Amino acid sequence: MTHRFNFSIHATEGKARTGTIQMLRGEIRTPAFMPVGTAATVKAMKPETVRAIGADIILGNTYHLMLRPGAERVARLGGLHKFMNWPRPILTDSGGYQVMSLSDLRKITEEGVTFASHLDGSRHMLSPERSMEIQRLLGSDIVMAFDECPRADRPRDEIARSMEMSMRWARRSRAGFDAGGEHAERSALFGIQQGALDEGLRRHSAEALRDIGFDGYAIGGLAVGEGQEAMFATLDFAPGMLPADRPRYLMGVGKPDDLVGAVERGVDMFDCVLPSRSGRNGQGFTWGGPLNLRNARHAEDTGPLDPDCSCSVCGHYSRAYLHHLHKSGEMLGAMLLTEHNLSFYQQLMQAMRDAIALGRFAEFAARFRRNYQPKGQ
Amino acid sequence: MTHRFNFSIHATEGKARTGTIQMLRGEIRTPAFMPVGTAATVKAMKPETVRAIGADIILGNTYHLMLRPGAERVARLGGLHKFMNWPRPILTDSGGYQVMSLSDLRKITEEGVTFASHLDGSRHMLSPERSMEIQRLLGSDIVMAFDECPRADRPRDEIARSMEMSMRWARRSRAGFDAGGEHAERSALFGIQQGALDEGLRRHSAEALRDIGFDGYAIGGLAVGEGQEAMFATLDFAPGMLPADRPRYLMGVGKPDDLVGAVERGVDMFDCVLPSRSGRNGQGFTWGGPLNLRNARHAEDTGPLDPDCSCSVCGHYSRAYLHHLHKSGEMLGAMLLTEHNLSFYQQLMQAMRDAIALGRFAEFAARFRRNYQPKGQ
Repeated sequence: MTHRFNFSIHATEGKARTGTIQMLRGEIRTPAFMPVGTAATVKAMKPETVRAIGADIILGNTYHLMLRPGAERVARLGGLHKFMNWPRPILTDSGGYQVMSLSDLRKITEEGVTFASHLDGSRHMLSPERSMEIQRLLGSDIVMAFDECPRADRPRDEIARSMEMSMRWARRSRAGFDAGGEHAERSALFGIQQGALDEGLRRHSAEALRDIGFDGYAIGGLAVGEGQEAMFATLDFAPGMLPADRPRYLMGVGKPDDLVGAVERGVDMFDCVLPSRSGRNGQGFTWGGPLNLRNARHAEDTGPLDPDCSCSVCGHYSRAYLHHLHKSGEMLGAMLLTEHNLSFYQQLMQAMRDAIALGRFAEFAARFRRNYQPKGQ
Repeated sequence: MTHRFNFSIHATEGKARTGTIQMLRGEIRTPAFMPVGTAATVKAMKPETVRAIGADIILGNTYHLMLRPGAERVARLGGLHKFMNWPRPILTDSGGYQVMSLSDLRKITEEGVTFASHLDGSRHMLSPERSMEIQRLLGSDIVMAFDECPRADRPRDEIARSMEMSMRWARRSRAGFDAGGEHAERSALFGIQQGALDEGLRRHSAEALRDIGFDGYAIGGLAVGEGQEAMFATLDFAPGMLPADRPRYLMGVGKPDDLVGAVERGVDMFDCVLPSRSGRNGQGFTWGGPLNLRNARHAEDTGPLDPDCSCSVCGHYSRAYLHHLHKSGEMLGAMLLTEHNLSFYQQLMQAMRDAIALGRFAEFAARFRRNYQPKGQ
């Protein structure tokens, strides 16, 4: 039997959980890391490779896709899955976060956000209703509520006002999504908790979201420059405010050590451009920490990027070759290092899922932290 | 039984031939198109994909590799095959053609060529002996003699003097190659006919090369701006001057219609950057001619790039998607279009091999020319 959206938790250890989300387009094993496919492509990767390395779901960006090729066009072309040749689940963000970051180009009102395209300066509008419509046109499997994401270092009353508006927008998102007809029957809607680093605001936000009711709950407004310590301090309380029987998604996170610490605190889903962007820039992730492949010390190193990695790149190519490709600006350098990094992230998630299932997650996390040098090797 | 180098012709039709070159690292079906792997990578392609689309052999560039990562370094790393994860035959050019094109940066004497690197201005030297040494260090399977390639529009006496020097360099290349010990026993050496568009000079060059003796013979000095008509006029006589029982390799050619016309005139091997470079620039080859995927008319075209193409790209992606990727500057656009183009070239070679084997090559060539619009669709 297939499900629109069914989350089963198979095992827990402390606050960490492992489980499965069943959806019509496929199963998502949690904790899950979602590669980012901004403009209808996980940059420098073929979709069959994204699947081969173990990704169950990818993320698409409403902001980028509404501007190019355009949501209506994607719909005319049969939806995002067909367009980009990815038949499995896709989560789309609401566009809110990216529009907010166009600081000089946007205007926010209770109705929504008007903004100028970074591509050609053309005027556009996003609101809860329009964001729901765009995500429906794209054919998204997991739709995100439209919210405002203020910087964590703003004054508390500004954070509070913003969060309150996001909760009103969450209700409008719910209504807009529910009006989506057949699409609403085949997909899921997640609400997004805001409130920055403030426990009271986070609680207020969580209560507002639970009152509306969503298939899953995201933790927004973190990984915006507050640092890992402040993020973990917030994750010590924020996930527990969200319904335990629903997936919790920490948006835009993170580094491998962020993921381990967040799973430890009860998070089930992640997305981040870091592994793919780093791959294009010559940074490779390993169990010992990140490495800069452009560094001359790799020029004659015949060993693999990570001897403990099971990916095809580590199986076939040396550090010396990756160094050469990145020094030469060859596209294959970005292709191989992106594949390795995203594969490494999937291996990390699989290792966490296995450890939780075996009741050995605390042991795994301790060993990970012993070996992993966050500042690089 | 494996062979250092054995060329068998299976069928002929008019001047066209189809056959097989057996080498220790694998078999090369002819007529063959060799994808260009300039800097130890066929740009934007994984080597397993290069093989999957049907390539039996690729080309490496001595000039680029000697500068970065350096021939001695490649040798220390186990040779070019291991370095780039391509276990099959590799043909390396001699560096001559590319050094000559550094017009302001090089000085030619009887001894060889001194030049400045386009990367950092450092001084380097290439001679027949050094070129043989570099190709041996790389571990090349088919080594090219070091020659000078003057522009076809130079005065006849200049072309003649250059060709005479190239023939003296061919003899020194032969001696240098033969002194290469074990490498000489496992690889092959090709001579290069020069003489531009002049029948007398081409004959003189062919005789000099036959006198020295090579495993195969290249036709150099064409596709340097003379146009298809002049190139075909030269190919009406040049291949027939070379030994019929040895492969004939037309260097740096070409467009699909060039390949058909050259096979018709007795050529067995080709290389060209065109399909890969075009793929990065948004040009896709089809049986109807080249297409510019950046053109807005493809924006909502759900059809494949070429309905008669059997490649994985045409099987999974629309013209609309390729258009989107190229307009967005996404790396996947270059990856997919390079794969399609190189696959299309391999399918063209396979179609020619099949047609010659069936005695239907004249029919194939006529049909190809009826359908193919060289200026684009």
